[in-house]
Amino acid sequence: MKLTITEKIFSEHVGKEVKAGAIIDSNIDMVIGNDITTPISIKAFKESGATKLANPDGFSIVMDHFIPAKDIASANQAKISREFAYEHDLKNFFDEKDMGIEHAILPEKGLIVPGDVIIGADSHTCTHGALGAFSTGMGSTDLAYAMITGRNWFKVPPTIKIIFSGKMPEFVYGKDLILEIIRQIGVDGARYKALEFGGETIAHLDMDSRFSLCNMAIEAGGKSGIVAVDEITKEFLKDKNLPRTPKYHYSDEGAQYDKIMQIDVSKLDPVVAYPHLPSNGKSIRQAVKDDLAVDQVFIGSCTNGRLGDLRIAASILKGKRVARKTRLIITPATQTIALQAQKEGLMDIFAEAGAVVSNPTCGACLGGYMGILGVGERCVSTTNRNFIGRMGDRTSEVYLANSAVAAASAIAGKIADPRDL
Amino acid sequence: MKLTITEKIFSEHVGKEVKAGAIIDSNIDMVIGNDITTPISIKAFKESGATKLANPDGFSIVMDHFIPAKDIASANQAKISREFAYEHDLKNFFDEKDMGIEHAILPEKGLIVPGDVIIGADSHTCTHGALGAFSTGMGSTDLAYAMITGRNWFKVPPTIKIIFSGKMPEFVYGKDLILEIIRQIGVDGARYKALEFGGETIAHLDMDSRFSLCNMAIEAGGKSGIVAVDEITKEFLKDKNLPRTPKYHYSDEGAQYDKIMQIDVSKLDPVVAYPHLPSNGKSIRQAVKDDLAVDQVFIGSCTNGRLGDLRIAASILKGKRVARKTRLIITPATQTIALQAQKEGLMDIFAEAGAVVSNPTCGACLGGYMGILGVGERCVSTTNRNFIGRMGDRTSEVYLANSAVAAASAIAGKIADPRDL
Repeated sequence: MKLTITEKIFSEHVGKEVKAGAIIDSNIDMVIGNDITTPISIKAFKESGATKLANPDGFSIVMDHFIPAKDIASANQAKISREFAYEHDLKNFFDEKDMGIEHAILPEKGLIVPGDVIIGADSHTCTHGALGAFSTGMGSTDLAYAMITGRNWFKVPPTIKIIFSGKMPEFVYGKDLILEIIRQIGVDGARYKALEFGGETIAHLDMDSRFSLCNMAIEAGGKSGIVAVDEITKEFLKDKNLPRTPKYHYSDEGAQYDKIMQIDVSKLDPVVAYPHLPSNGKSIRQAVKDDLAVDQVFIGSCTNGRLGDLRIAASILKGKRVARKTRLIITPATQTIALQAQKEGLMDIFAEAGAVVSNPTCGACLGGYMGILGVGERCVSTTNRNFIGRMGDRTSEVYLANSAVAAASAIAGKIADPRDL
Repeated sequence: MKLTITEKIFSEHVGKEVKAGAIIDSNIDMVIGNDITTPISIKAFKESGATKLANPDGFSIVMDHFIPAKDIASANQAKISREFAYEHDLKNFFDEKDMGIEHAILPEKGLIVPGDVIIGADSHTCTHGALGAFSTGMGSTDLAYAMITGRNWFKVPPTIKIIFSGKMPEFVYGKDLILEIIRQIGVDGARYKALEFGGETIAHLDMDSRFSLCNMAIEAGGKSGIVAVDEITKEFLKDKNLPRTPKYHYSDEGAQYDKIMQIDVSKLDPVVAYPHLPSNGKSIRQAVKDDLAVDQVFIGSCTNGRLGDLRIAASILKGKRVARKTRLIITPATQTIALQAQKEGLMDIFAEAGAVVSNPTCGACLGGYMGILGVGERCVSTTNRNFIGRMGDRTSEVYLANSAVAAASAIAGKIADPRDL
């Protein structure tokens, strides 16, 4: 059979060839929970009478949403995960001691391996597909099932193949590619489908851009996003002590796709997704014309809080000052990223520009803490969702963009094109 | 007349000699509000029909409690101060662009001048007395009166003179001195009185320790705390572009004191104030005997979030790791402090030790955000208050200590004596 990379990953896991539509039961290589979803999984785990994790080293808890605790409720919620992690002597427990957003810290720590089947009780679990794994978000009770059994069931998803061609223009990144795809197919255009990103351009796309691409597969309704392993992936993985043997799968010529999309990236401008859907993408040129003053700019999240994003932002902010009535919040995705940014002098650039740099956290992205929007406030954000009230008050507005557009907008005090600076 | 330094400051302000007990009307050199108290002042200001500040450059707003906004309510509250600051073109408006805790950032920016009369709608406004100024906390409506008129009324406070003698032992700081004083006189022992700190030891006490001392005058019920200007004060002020001419006042020999206390500092151990009052001070030796496991350690606040505190903590944390079940949160008091700590390599030490370093904020100290305690959790904190529920759940416990004790406790996972490391 001619198979897609996603079909091959599942075939390898179940020991026979399976195609899109097959309902299968697969072992899970990594199960991921966070501080707000794990307590629900733990409750279901305990109610089932379970006492042992099927695969303790294949279970990670990452405390990233409301930690350090923003209020008493968060503090009490965090206690549940902590107590469970200590009781089960969990190796992969990332709390305040080694902070990071789950979808950034797990790849960084070498816990995501090409060929893996991964589930997480967080919708952006699809991010890890950037390493050639199948990775998807599930509910907390689905997680509990995997905690107990080490397995779960899947309907193997059909694949939409995206073929990128052309050279990436300056200030266009993976974020713009995925916003363009969602603009074209809509927020339900990939419902229960795998988005497979390929084409000649991919070979020139760094891991940061690939993580952004896969991260937002869910914003098109996708089950997963995936990029096949190449030299760039191998370079990213080379110093990591991987807990499983990586398996490199590639879609066969002649594999069956639900749909094939061709995107010539050379013609793209940076994309800004207007409120209140990620599919409301417009060219930055249009946004500049619309003269949109911004109260807050947020650079961070599992979409765009990586070192590359901080470097892009710093290159634009260097020697400049954030506009008087605009606030700029920068949240590095992990502590390792923050420390590296410090070593490179980026933190000084941010401080001199007037940005506030927070500890690593999901924070503002989900309206958690660390930059919530008030009545009628407008924010340019490098995050993944601009739904009504996502980052604060129901009357606030979120415009999704890449880190360069965000940084340029912070300086201008309105949505700005980094090419105009 | 023989006058105390506090009486002299008021005498100079009203143009005639006044003594303790006199009710006078004084101009105010600096009026300070923050993100949670200023909105109330602004409301009173507007309701009075006022449209202009009496002295715009003598009014500071510092956004430090719930900023970057921890929730929608904080975001909307912050809008009130921001809009007022922009409308009145306020020079001394410290928002996310130059973050810091009010009682750390105003001295740092040279806005507190020896001889000043200062009021702030925050109880720890007494901190600024460390620079030889009279500085006290008032209500938000009192603040509004001063915003409108540039003045307010005071009953000149009687003074308790504290005479420190002896050499400061290792790991004993200003924080321990003030905890010892409060232990002796109680949380109401200095009610409506000025605490004047003097004696031979003072000449060897750095500004960080002096700020801690004055900061907690309010925890003994004091109206203010004050240290007369000396070479150490002048060194602190020397590169600052002070907006007013400094006036150096000194208590006269024979000035009348409400009480004189003598404290031989050479005999002190580091002090730990047990729950639930700052007056519950015990020797660290007792606390070690009591074998008190800690869930969280917090190093920060207007009491002990200064560069000296970070250096002390780093000297203890270097090469060590925070105990497995303990969390360590470090919150530099201002962005300038954070940047300097970075330059000195302290941030790397903190990260390697497993601490989470936050943006400057009052944060955890007041149960605001960034480290709130859950049910039954125990915290060692360098802050100023350990009242029931101060940092979170009503069943949580706060033990007040200096930065060395805090850092040592983080490593040990229980309250520890830095001298034992």
